Amino acid sequence: MEVLILGAAGMVGRKLTERLAKDGRLGGREISRVVLHDVVPPQAPQNAPFPVATATSDVSAPGEAAKLVASRPDIVFHLAAIVSGEAEADFEKGYRINLDGTRELFEAIRLASDGYRPRVVFTSSIAVFGAPFPDAIGDEFFLTPLTSYGTQKAIGELLLADYTRRGFFDGVGIRLPTICVRPGKPNKAASGFFSGIIREPLSGQEAILPVPDDVRHTHASPRSAVNFLVHAASLDGAALGPRRSLTMPGVSVTVAEQVDALRRIAGDRVAARIRREPNPTIMAIVEGWPRRFDARRARDLGFRAEDNFDDIIRIHIEDELGGTFAR
Amino acid sequence: MEVLILGAAGMVGRKLTERLAKDGRLGGREISRVVLHDVVPPQAPQNAPFPVATATSDVSAPGEAAKLVASRPDIVFHLAAIVSGEAEADFEKGYRINLDGTRELFEAIRLASDGYRPRVVFTSSIAVFGAPFPDAIGDEFFLTPLTSYGTQKAIGELLLADYTRRGFFDGVGIRLPTICVRPGKPNKAASGFFSGIIREPLSGQEAILPVPDDVRHTHASPRSAVNFLVHAASLDGAALGPRRSLTMPGVSVTVAEQVDALRRIAGDRVAARIRREPNPTIMAIVEGWPRRFDARRARDLGFRAEDNFDDIIRIHIEDELGGTFAR
Repeated sequence: MEVLILGAAGMVGRKLTERLAKDGRLGGREISRVVLHDVVPPQAPQNAPFPVATATSDVSAPGEAAKLVASRPDIVFHLAAIVSGEAEADFEKGYRINLDGTRELFEAIRLASDGYRPRVVFTSSIAVFGAPFPDAIGDEFFLTPLTSYGTQKAIGELLLADYTRRGFFDGVGIRLPTICVRPGKPNKAASGFFSGIIREPLSGQEAILPVPDDVRHTHASPRSAVNFLVHAASLDGAALGPRRSLTMPGVSVTVAEQVDALRRIAGDRVAARIRREPNPTIMAIVEGWPRRFDARRARDLGFRAEDNFDDIIRIHIEDELGGTFAR
Repeated sequence: MEVLILGAAGMVGRKLTERLAKDGRLGGREISRVVLHDVVPPQAPQNAPFPVATATSDVSAPGEAAKLVASRPDIVFHLAAIVSGEAEADFEKGYRINLDGTRELFEAIRLASDGYRPRVVFTSSIAVFGAPFPDAIGDEFFLTPLTSYGTQKAIGELLLADYTRRGFFDGVGIRLPTICVRPGKPNKAASGFFSGIIREPLSGQEAILPVPDDVRHTHASPRSAVNFLVHAASLDGAALGPRRSLTMPGVSVTVAEQVDALRRIAGDRVAARIRREPNPTIMAIVEGWPRRFDARRARDLGFRAEDNFDDIIRIHIEDELGGTFAR
């Protein structure tokens, strides 16, 4: 079985690649080859039990997507996207990559014809939802994105459903919650502090908390994000029916509950590295975000996230810090 | 005030043009010029109190949309579309006109920059909804189209909202119910009989009813469709907020209620021209259609349809048959 990953150089793409290299299989079938694609050169994993090819191009450029599906990969993971902030700052780039790029990929698969009908796993986002929200967003809540990124993801979901209905491929869309704890350096995303207040204290650094303790948000670990992708790759498409995109489960906690979990796991000294510094700009952005989901369909279909935030912290310590942290 | 109508050669486009010619004004402002556009030559109305220009081109072709907005029309009615059946039969044509054409138009307006910010009235459709349905579809029901046409209209709604949010234009989307009584000859649309069982008997012809009498559907007259467009053109955009598309009101009746209304207005002899001839194919298609809407937002914003099906028949007799019918 051949696997194509678009957006392979990103955090989730790299972790998915590592997981496939470790498993050697996907959905019970042996992997014969993996192609990693991104706009910057993706890194091939060490010691993969299958050949790995890398490709670097702009998927929205004419003809590029056709090259990527020429070898007829059985599973296509479409993780490539311009992120929320950049899609808002650069309108044309966001539409070109997130909408045109997605359409070029879907069209390349459709035009391959010859009975080719891969599983396409598309990463959507909870940014497809826009305030005002109910207490918990159910599987039938309507899509009213309030960002260009969310609009582009919602359009991707619609295209995914129509191309699937028409039999051009077999699509599954997964709406990822905020991934926490994000490894690496702090970034400028407004949501960055949700990871920062865990990651920085565990590595001996001070972290800034710009919002009140009662802010609620939904999280899943990078490990869960990879589990979602792997599960989506082998899910029975018939069980989904015509509604192909699913809100993924996650852990809904307040910032206070995040801090309490950090204190339980790492102690008072670590938790004391969080400095409260209210930032009205970030508070205003966070106010517009969903807080809680009722991801019943995904759970019923076997998607699993962590049960509690303690586990999310433990996974970070295991996967990123070699099992230890700065006490 | 200059008005541009895309899709001006269609039934609704022609009726809208006639209405503007009769009123000479729109939203309290005098009309200085109207441009009628379609892929086939649109017909200029007789005795319009303003100059009328016509243009014929494929709006999805590069550069064509820019020509249409070069004169900076204040109101843009975007009615142009490949209809449901054709968009399903010809996948590429449907996406090219309904998605690319819409995007070319929106992009042409965005790229005009120079402070140009017209009202754009986009005709969407109840085809954005897909079964299973609640008893009445409310304003927050989610969009799960089950046709390529419905998918393209749902994408148009998303783009309309995002371009409006970004300040490129001021968009209003209106989801039209089935237009009844459609004037003209019978067509092959699966929904054609809803009009046919009124139109044909009133002109002395036999009509075939392919579904059971208890089938329920929502209708608005062509006159109401034009009223919706005129109202949408002058609506206060701020009252809409970020959710720019509205389900229009209509009359929800069963086929039996349609026939009863015809009998009340035109008598037993006319109603007897309906011949029941069950057609399982049409029945299966109609089963997947929405039956009833709770169009509260649109009503609150002042959109009005008929109150009952008798009025829909009377309007047909007045507007299309010169006030009389074949007894």
